[in-house]
Amino acid sequence: MNFELNILGCGSAKPTTRHQPTSQILNVRGKFFMIDCGEGVQAQMQRMGLSMMNIGHIFISHNHGDHVFGLPGLIGTMDLLGRTAELHIHGPQQVGELLDFLMSTYYGDIQYKVLFHPVDTRKYDLVYEDRSITVHSIPLQHRLPTSGYLFREKPNLPHIKRELIDAYGIPVSQINNIKAGASWTTEDGTVIPHERLTFPAAPPRSYAYCSDTVYLPDLKEIVKGVDLLYHEATYFHERALRAEQTRHSTALQAAQVAKDAGVGQLCIGHFSASIKDENALLKEAQSVFPNTILANEGLVLSI
Amino acid sequence: MNFELNILGCGSAKPTTRHQPTSQILNVRGKFFMIDCGEGVQAQMQRMGLSMMNIGHIFISHNHGDHVFGLPGLIGTMDLLGRTAELHIHGPQQVGELLDFLMSTYYGDIQYKVLFHPVDTRKYDLVYEDRSITVHSIPLQHRLPTSGYLFREKPNLPHIKRELIDAYGIPVSQINNIKAGASWTTEDGTVIPHERLTFPAAPPRSYAYCSDTVYLPDLKEIVKGVDLLYHEATYFHERALRAEQTRHSTALQAAQVAKDAGVGQLCIGHFSASIKDENALLKEAQSVFPNTILANEGLVLSI
Repeated sequence: MNFELNILGCGSAKPTTRHQPTSQILNVRGKFFMIDCGEGVQAQMQRMGLSMMNIGHIFISHNHGDHVFGLPGLIGTMDLLGRTAELHIHGPQQVGELLDFLMSTYYGDIQYKVLFHPVDTRKYDLVYEDRSITVHSIPLQHRLPTSGYLFREKPNLPHIKRELIDAYGIPVSQINNIKAGASWTTEDGTVIPHERLTFPAAPPRSYAYCSDTVYLPDLKEIVKGVDLLYHEATYFHERALRAEQTRHSTALQAAQVAKDAGVGQLCIGHFSASIKDENALLKEAQSVFPNTILANEGLVLSI
Repeated sequence: MNFELNILGCGSAKPTTRHQPTSQILNVRGKFFMIDCGEGVQAQMQRMGLSMMNIGHIFISHNHGDHVFGLPGLIGTMDLLGRTAELHIHGPQQVGELLDFLMSTYYGDIQYKVLFHPVDTRKYDLVYEDRSITVHSIPLQHRLPTSGYLFREKPNLPHIKRELIDAYGIPVSQINNIKAGASWTTEDGTVIPHERLTFPAAPPRSYAYCSDTVYLPDLKEIVKGVDLLYHEATYFHERALRAEQTRHSTALQAAQVAKDAGVGQLCIGHFSASIKDENALLKEAQSVFPNTILANEGLVLSI
């Protein structure tokens, strides 16, 4: 089952020929969760063969242009493509003001509903849930109210051992009970324990998105043990003061969060336009947390 | 001297992998006049090696997203690049509302001024003038108030025949007078006529931009004899009814305007996403006006 991160853009505000502004798609079993929506996302999705119509929810970190200026065009295009399903947009209150303006000025007559769900950027909170995942807000600190997002798969039920079901002649109607934890008693009264009839499902997967933010040592509590952490690394650590002033992080700081939280893998992005050699940035992060990779447009990470 | 059209995007609202939304740069002697500003213009300018900082004026045809959604990001990037020069944006009143929203929501503290100049879309009117060109509005008919733009070089003064100036010993101080039309009288009273001392400058060049619009037979009066006409050709003529309903034009209609106006060359663009074979669209236009070309991203036309 897909649990796959697609990087559409991992640059910062000043555009370069190497990077697009921030946007990602987390593909959870074919449902697309967009995270941030910088200018140019439509073209980038087309290049990557990702259909806009699979997006049900968009999670916006904060209302800076390089994270939201893809929304105006995307909303219109979905209408031109014949969308009728509701589109849910989650983000800090300021994003709602952008949406209000767009809907009243450009999209009074579109054929689907755009629903805004304000996110309280001051707390860790459940912002979305369906059968397969939960999404929690992650309080970040930037120049505007900003939220990261933590995507967690729900625990999967164990798998049935088909050959034993057949061998014991267990009726199909009992399979869901057994998956849910029941044992099976044969006609001669023998109890076949649940554990013998099933094998465990893959452990639930998790992904945390943290951008934009100043270095937050306490972030490790929320992102503890996630399989993949995307953390902004706008600057080299030699510019830690600049990072602090602009409420961004360095590669070293991103890696420190990853190490302290014991995550599986770290992906760094939101590179300053001033950075010419991203491999040096990667080395800086790897000196603290070896299992670090660089984000890049078109990168697809199976979690 | 440059009088050069750069096509940044020539698609229509629904995005395709082949075309970007509408934007152009008319380069007049190094001064960039941007015409419309669809999403993705910054990346496209970078690909074409055009500096955003050379843009002094932006002329917007109408307030549909595929013509304006590049403005939010462009305004911010110019600030990040250290712009201090005023940026002038001309367009229908509705564009002013977009700018008001952007300035109050995102750009309260940028370091340069954005000045909006409303254009009356109902009339042919002088909207800009400097030493070398004039820009007039062209009333178009679309679903929103829409204006085309006519760029005309001012007549250039004739060139001096340097060798005759030397031969007659005419002082440098008199050269501007002679350029402006004066004759020269030698010491023995011989009058050397202005025409003998000069040769004519190249005739002033002109460019007309007409998009988006329904077919307007009377448009020929305004664009009569321009060197280059860009006219939208959203559809094949077999979809003339659809064009009429959506207030767009067909390739045949674009060519009819070009023919009736006796322009030098026609460039067609604003292609519907439904058009797979643009060469067939070109042939349709050429059947009426042979000197027609297709717009394309990256195309540079020296006028």
